[in-house]
Amino acid sequence: MSTATVAPVVTFGEVLLRLSPPGTERFFQSPTLRTFWGGAEANVAAGLAWLGGQASHVTLLPDSPIADAAVRAMRGDGVNMGHVQRGVGRVGIYFLESGAGARPLAVTYDRADSAFARMTGDEFDWRQILQGAAWFHVSGVSAALGDGPYRAIQHAMDAADALNVPISLDLNYRPALWAGRDPKPLMQALAKRASLLIGNPGALQVMLGIDTAGTWPEPPEAVRTSAELAAAQFGCAHVAVTQREIISASEHGWQAHVYDAAARQMYSARRYQIELVDRVGGGDSFVAALLYQLQRSVALPDALEFATAASALKLTIAGDVNRVTERDVATFLSSVK
Amino acid sequence: MSTATVAPVVTFGEVLLRLSPPGTERFFQSPTLRTFWGGAEANVAAGLAWLGGQASHVTLLPDSPIADAAVRAMRGDGVNMGHVQRGVGRVGIYFLESGAGARPLAVTYDRADSAFARMTGDEFDWRQILQGAAWFHVSGVSAALGDGPYRAIQHAMDAADALNVPISLDLNYRPALWAGRDPKPLMQALAKRASLLIGNPGALQVMLGIDTAGTWPEPPEAVRTSAELAAAQFGCAHVAVTQREIISASEHGWQAHVYDAAARQMYSARRYQIELVDRVGGGDSFVAALLYQLQRSVALPDALEFATAASALKLTIAGDVNRVTERDVATFLSSVK
Amino acid sequence: MSTATVAPVVTFGEVLLRLSPPGTERFFQSPTLRTFWGGAEANVAAGLAWLGGQASHVTLLPDSPIADAAVRAMRGDGVNMGHVQRGVGRVGIYFLESGAGARPLAVTYDRADSAFARMTGDEFDWRQILQGAAWFHVSGVSAALGDGPYRAIQHAMDAADALNVPISLDLNYRPALWAGRDPKPLMQALAKRASLLIGNPGALQVMLGIDTAGTWPEPPEAVRTSAELAAAQFGCAHVAVTQREIISASEHGWQAHVYDAAARQMYSARRYQIELVDRVGGGDSFVAALLYQLQRSVALPDALEFATAASALKLTIAGDVNRVTERDVATFLSSVK
Amino acid sequence: MSTATVAPVVTFGEVLLRLSPPGTERFFQSPTLRTFWGGAEANVAAGLAWLGGQASHVTLLPDSPIADAAVRAMRGDGVNMGHVQRGVGRVGIYFLESGAGARPLAVTYDRADSAFARMTGDEFDWRQILQGAAWFHVSGVSAALGDGPYRAIQHAMDAADALNVPISLDLNYRPALWAGRDPKPLMQALAKRASLLIGNPGALQVMLGIDTAGTWPEPPEAVRTSAELAAAQFGCAHVAVTQREIISASEHGWQAHVYDAAARQMYSARRYQIELVDRVGGGDSFVAALLYQLQRSVALPDALEFATAASALKLTIAGDVNRVTERDVATFLSSVK
Amino acid sequence: MSTATVAPVVTFGEVLLRLSPPGTERFFQSPTLRTFWGGAEANVAAGLAWLGGQASHVTLLPDSPIADAAVRAMRGDGVNMGHVQRGVGRVGIYFLESGAGARPLAVTYDRADSAFARMTGDEFDWRQILQGAAWFHVSGVSAALGDGPYRAIQHAMDAADALNVPISLDLNYRPALWAGRDPKPLMQALAKRASLLIGNPGALQVMLGIDTAGTWPEPPEAVRTSAELAAAQFGCAHVAVTQREIISASEHGWQAHVYDAAARQMYSARRYQIELVDRVGGGDSFVAALLYQLQRSVALPDALEFATAASALKLTIAGDVNRVTERDVATFLSSVK
Amino acid sequence: MSTATVAPVVTFGEVLLRLSPPGTERFFQSPTLRTFWGGAEANVAAGLAWLGGQASHVTLLPDSPIADAAVRAMRGDGVNMGHVQRGVGRVGIYFLESGAGARPLAVTYDRADSAFARMTGDEFDWRQILQGAAWFHVSGVSAALGDGPYRAIQHAMDAADALNVPISLDLNYRPALWAGRDPKPLMQALAKRASLLIGNPGALQVMLGIDTAGTWPEPPEAVRTSAELAAAQFGCAHVAVTQREIISASEHGWQAHVYDAAARQMYSARRYQIELVDRVGGGDSFVAALLYQLQRSVALPDALEFATAASALKLTIAGDVNRVTERDVATFLSSVK
Repeated sequence: MSTATVAPVVTFGEVLLRLSPPGTERFFQSPTLRTFWGGAEANVAAGLAWLGGQASHVTLLPDSPIADAAVRAMRGDGVNMGHVQRGVGRVGIYFLESGAGARPLAVTYDRADSAFARMTGDEFDWRQILQGAAWFHVSGVSAALGDGPYRAIQHAMDAADALNVPISLDLNYRPALWAGRDPKPLMQALAKRASLLIGNPGALQVMLGIDTAGTWPEPPEAVRTSAELAAAQFGCAHVAVTQREIISASEHGWQAHVYDAAARQMYSARRYQIELVDRVGGGDSFVAALLYQLQRSVALPDALEFATAASALKLTIAGDVNRVTERDVATFLSSVK
Repeated sequence: MSTATVAPVVTFGEVLLRLSPPGTERFFQSPTLRTFWGGAEANVAAGLAWLGGQASHVTLLPDSPIADAAVRAMRGDGVNMGHVQRGVGRVGIYFLESGAGARPLAVTYDRADSAFARMTGDEFDWRQILQGAAWFHVSGVSAALGDGPYRAIQHAMDAADALNVPISLDLNYRPALWAGRDPKPLMQALAKRASLLIGNPGALQVMLGIDTAGTWPEPPEAVRTSAELAAAQFGCAHVAVTQREIISASEHGWQAHVYDAAARQMYSARRYQIELVDRVGGGDSFVAALLYQLQRSVALPDALEFATAASALKLTIAGDVNRVTERDVATFLSSVK
Repeated sequence: MSTATVAPVVTFGEVLLRLSPPGTERFFQSPTLRTFWGGAEANVAAGLAWLGGQASHVTLLPDSPIADAAVRAMRGDGVNMGHVQRGVGRVGIYFLESGAGARPLAVTYDRADSAFARMTGDEFDWRQILQGAAWFHVSGVSAALGDGPYRAIQHAMDAADALNVPISLDLNYRPALWAGRDPKPLMQALAKRASLLIGNPGALQVMLGIDTAGTWPEPPEAVRTSAELAAAQFGCAHVAVTQREIISASEHGWQAHVYDAAARQMYSARRYQIELVDRVGGGDSFVAALLYQLQRSVALPDALEFATAASALKLTIAGDVNRVTERDVATFLSSVK
Repeated sequence: MSTATVAPVVTFGEVLLRLSPPGTERFFQSPTLRTFWGGAEANVAAGLAWLGGQASHVTLLPDSPIADAAVRAMRGDGVNMGHVQRGVGRVGIYFLESGAGARPLAVTYDRADSAFARMTGDEFDWRQILQGAAWFHVSGVSAALGDGPYRAIQHAMDAADALNVPISLDLNYRPALWAGRDPKPLMQALAKRASLLIGNPGALQVMLGIDTAGTWPEPPEAVRTSAELAAAQFGCAHVAVTQREIISASEHGWQAHVYDAAARQMYSARRYQIELVDRVGGGDSFVAALLYQLQRSVALPDALEFATAASALKLTIAGDVNRVTERDVATFLSSVK
Repeated sequence: MSTATVAPVVTFGEVLLRLSPPGTERFFQSPTLRTFWGGAEANVAAGLAWLGGQASHVTLLPDSPIADAAVRAMRGDGVNMGHVQRGVGRVGIYFLESGAGARPLAVTYDRADSAFARMTGDEFDWRQILQGAAWFHVSGVSAALGDGPYRAIQHAMDAADALNVPISLDLNYRPALWAGRDPKPLMQALAKRASLLIGNPGALQVMLGIDTAGTWPEPPEAVRTSAELAAAQFGCAHVAVTQREIISASEHGWQAHVYDAAARQMYSARRYQIELVDRVGGGDSFVAALLYQLQRSVALPDALEFATAASALKLTIAGDVNRVTERDVATFLSSVK
Repeated sequence: MSTATVAPVVTFGEVLLRLSPPGTERFFQSPTLRTFWGGAEANVAAGLAWLGGQASHVTLLPDSPIADAAVRAMRGDGVNMGHVQRGVGRVGIYFLESGAGARPLAVTYDRADSAFARMTGDEFDWRQILQGAAWFHVSGVSAALGDGPYRAIQHAMDAADALNVPISLDLNYRPALWAGRDPKPLMQALAKRASLLIGNPGALQVMLGIDTAGTWPEPPEAVRTSAELAAAQFGCAHVAVTQREIISASEHGWQAHVYDAAARQMYSARRYQIELVDRVGGGDSFVAALLYQLQRSVALPDALEFATAASALKLTIAGDVNRVTERDVATFLSSVK
């Protein structure tokens, strides 16, 4: 926690307020809602900061006490919020019921017309923001939110290229956000600029047009083929593929792989079967931990094991953010070996 | 939620206040109690209304703020409480500790001398109440509560017969309520008037004198034999048999069957093994969903699958009432197929 | 609670979700929000039902579990929700911090683009809805929410006129909702159709163009002059004027007057100085109690005393709705006399 | 907290479960109830133990986990529960809503048919129980609960007389418990055996037939006259008179006096005006503190000041029991001097 | 709950305040901590009292409201706290995060410089305390806390020997408390005086120097060999060995054995696999139940089954103390047979 | 919230964990504690950041999850925690009961042997830390905590002098921390280096030896005389004097004055009488707001009014930190004018 000299990972995306009933209750069974703050890219930033890394999250929020609370929450997690802009609109909300056992998770989105979605895309001085950054990370969620956010991503990637900051892109396919639109034109353009591409097989197919096996979960050879195709087609140095098997609302299988294009090699991490506390943010926590390790030049197979273990732990933690330190992950890894 | 023109199911029974310690705690480990409202027949009414049906619950409560809260709770669930009468006595209470894993559920009843139990049985104008009703439903719990409630049931069944409203009877065997008394004389008389009879094998034996296999769980053939015997002896068109296997305080097996006397055929639904949130009200939610489907003329095997799935979901929901909509059940059914 | 034969008061307006931090905390000081349901006209309906009256609330909500909870809450309070329509959009939200002592209440609205605001105004069959109604009640809040809601009000008033249902209009001036627009053209047109007009002096001035004294609180003579002017200009049989003095976030003065145009007489109720629990819904609870008494043909001065006492009690109750029965108000009135 | 050698005060009475909604909410506004344990004489025992004294509470409870919790709670407060008997019946309950400001406290009793009320009165071996006791204390609440409890009181007083244990009697008039009965015959008989008599002017009149001024609050001279009359008529060495002025649900005036029959002198304590947290148990905490001081041979005026201060503090403490130590009272007394 | 005439078990050890985040949350994810009171030997005393036995706990606490709460908690559980001494220092604290599924339990100790650890060891009059006691019980935790506590244990054992009170010693190995010190010299000296010795194989090895198999869990034959060695070397009449298998943070295996030196026989209890609520206090609850049964002269194999079942139940109960009655254990035992 | 270019205020002091029972309860009446983070100087930093200023807090904490939570909390409030050092020891704790009405606040300290108190004082590189700082702020609390912290203050002041960073010193007299020691030698030495001195009259007398009137509250003339004396004797440019009048546990009077030595003028702010939510941190919030305004070159009388209003608001906010923005204070100020 000394003054940071490490290069930060810069993330870009919306910060959402999650509202959940207590425990396994149904919505409004009690007159209280538990609040959490999250968002695909924000979770990456917060997860990185928890591990001990440097992260700066760029977003646009309205000027309200609700938005101030979002900033406070991310800052508490250790994320630099110095580049946040304020604009017109609301704070996006999603209502989430966790389910229990056979009863599935249920989400009601209320994120339309957020200040983030209503940005022009010209609000940020990316040259200044990305100066000295280790990575720029964004996901398909931001790309889906509208012309403004997409434009902002393009500007960010232009600046990243100019500054030689490598780009990380998590496909993060959310059908509801793309309703009636084909993600491929937008996402393929972004994938071409990414050094690290992350996605599950379904997202690779729908968002990038990569042929996948279509079985679930896909066997490692099939994953490798898809990853290789993606790396070749979009010129990505690394393609990470995560796979979640939903056994029940309370138990998930979880595994991840990384394909190294230069070495033409794929690594597969240990598979975890996890008694769930909170299924949100598993993929984001994986990306956070992978970037954390890559930045430290940890060897790819080790980085992958670390990232998969970190994200397995995430599934046991309430909220969108992976509240684990590097030591927590190391302890866990040594206990399962 | 438009103004109802569908014929309602009319239920009759006590509404009880459940008081439970938080989570898996033991009684008074914390100085708070969680409140729920329920009662065997009230749960059927509320479950029906949650699914989207019309239900009217008939009961007798004292004139107190506690009783008003019972009315409010049922009304919130969508049940018509316009036929509730007020009388002298208290609101029945039961204290329930959920247990956890190997530690079993523990109940302390405090329902003696309730206003419901102290009714004369002549308080209700059943001709008016049952006018246009789709079903009249009652259970062995009400029959056990005393002469007044039993008399009220007889009056209700007289009116139902006169109005051609079919009768549904859930045996609902609670040994504590029949202490020292043989349920058979009272229950056999009611069973003879029921079109739909619901019970588990033990209740069929103890309350109606039907020979059952005595194994647990009973194999389908044995269930069929018992159901056939019951249908024949009491002239019921349908006999539904539910079976719960208590694997631990946290995990139950759950299955149901329906015997169709006219077709001389028994249908068995998919068996569920459920990670429990709340074991109360499983059978009631099954009846609610079955009546909901029968009223819509859904084919018996489909109605049974729906009802079994609905009641499996109930076991994952806190409280006595099955807080699921028809859409929730459909979603769940399509996920397990 | 027997089946209603009394003519219901029909109200029209948005139902909002209120989210508040626990007790006197600031927003997000704890990660929980207390939920309440309310809305100017919905509060009138719920307050009426609590007192023992019949009320039917007409609104338009999206088709979501959040909206279902709104219906359930109102229904629990005893309001008929059988005329609710479903449409596209969200459930309006407002975040409310109660303040404490010298620290004032703070509200952040998040109600834009609600399903209610996005209605066309042609969704309701007012002839059917208002058939047999005792009153139609609406407020300036609904008028402010957009062309659709305003159009719906006009349709409702047309039907009310045709069915001889008297109209009650609460001005309910909320500057934020009229930002940049002059309420007078819209509100004067509605006032002309109202039999009962309710407002505070400021609202009379800004929304109807009535000259008021401009002091705070206004002396009874000034109130009388304004009320007389309003009655004359818009042809209202009764004009009720409420006045709140904010002594601190925890203590308010509260008084009400009614001008009877036919008798050319103004009545003033006892003034209350109230240690506050929740300042929201004071005016709505006054209207609820006044309509409740007028419908029972209680003499105007007594109806006014009752309504003022009921609304004084409201300020001691958490939430938007006045959870008091007629007996509660009578007990309170007899204790202060 | 060393092993007790001080003579204990023995109290006799029912232990009740209090159920209250959170904070100032109305019943069942939230689905939780706060639990407290109390009862007029039990509160005296617990208050004494908190101050540092020795107290043993005698009661009869059912054999249930709910009753076990009552024992545990009293024992935690430091009361010896070694003489508790078990019997048939339930644990008495009362529902209490605290009110707020202008809204008054509201109580719904549910104590009928408790195991305590159903005792025969012969369950206790008073000779053994009272051996070595400093005082025997009981109140009019126990006398009102039925023939069995009254009979037990008579047996206890017989034993107390035989063992020279002085008797303390708090009139504790609760109209609901005496409904339709004249308390005088029963209470006068008990008063004749009491060495210390405690009551407010209304109770002296209704329960003992003593003429009182009938104003509220009564002036000291009037209190003195009533106390003198009571002392003379019933032969009590000391008569304590407490007076509560209910300014609002949140603010009470509180004062106490003691008349010393031997010295023919009345002492009046400082009057407190108290911002209330919980109005229950004020009188009981006064008795507890008075007995505590009398047993320590503190001079009567000082004992009275201490007891009045202790009971003023009680009104700021949630629950039936006065959770203050002797040091807390001393600190408070020195701060107000 | 009648006045005790049974000889009490006297325990000696620190009472600690446990602070835990709600449910499965991480530390300070919410701004509340759940409090529990415990301590190895205090848990034995409280567990014994819950079962229905007599227990007296000897400890030293500071003179503060926090320490008073510790006394109140233990007393509520039924433990005699009449021999507690007060001294200088603080109340020891430990922060405990329960973990969930794959995420392990995490403890942060803050018990240094407690009043207990700072005792001289001469504060207690053991002759008086142990007069008439059934057992004296202590554990290796107290021995590890410093010279003062160790000296107190020696004094207690001297008095126990003089009074013919048998001694029970639970090894309770906590590496953090012995950091840098060899427990053997201190613990071997204590073991030589113990009639009943309890430990797991690891503790036997590290604290007493007994050779064990070193596998996990150890097979019964290996356990028997170790127990026999310990009995022989230290002259203990009985050696109990408990074994916990940590399957996940939520599931543990649990088994116990007792070696009877006189009979040269080892008994092994049924093995339980437990879905955990709280892993703390399992061993303590085993000792409590074993002593409870031994004192009642229950045959050793039955006592062992009872104690193992009681401690299996403990793992399903929140907090350090086993809140089960003898009836709860009997019910559980009959359900698993 | 853009990247800071404003010079930060650097504060130095311990961060403590506050543990409080819910609402107005007594300790451990419920088994939960509310947590807050604070500390005299940390509160200044957090208050400044809430207002919109830049603050960096320097402290020494152990390396534990508890300490990490302290860092997270301060960071969430907007304080730069980049200069925090880790060391050996514990996190200081204080238990606080808020009291209610006549019942006073009660505190039990448990802060001995904290990592902060055990520092050597040489852990910080003040030259680097204070480079570019606007102010260095410390209080008498840190000076009292031991030789290490005092040494660190001396080093910090040396660096501040060398870098021309003005020094602010809040006397903050806490008798318990100086027990048996005369604060004057230590505090006079620090006062001589302070540009801004803050204290109440009692602290000026006890810690600096300044003669004060000794009445309570002191009249403005007396305050002026004391402030003038202090300014003259220690060469402080400004002396601020705050005065709190404790009317009850729920109501305090609050006023502040500033003496400007150069102008030989004293300014007195409006006096507030505040209904309290939390009395902790009033003085700290005053200092925070005063520094915030001085740094912005606001005129002294306006800065004083702002700071007094900000600290009056603090007393209505739960916790140690003043959670108000500059806009909140401005709104409040405009409402009271």
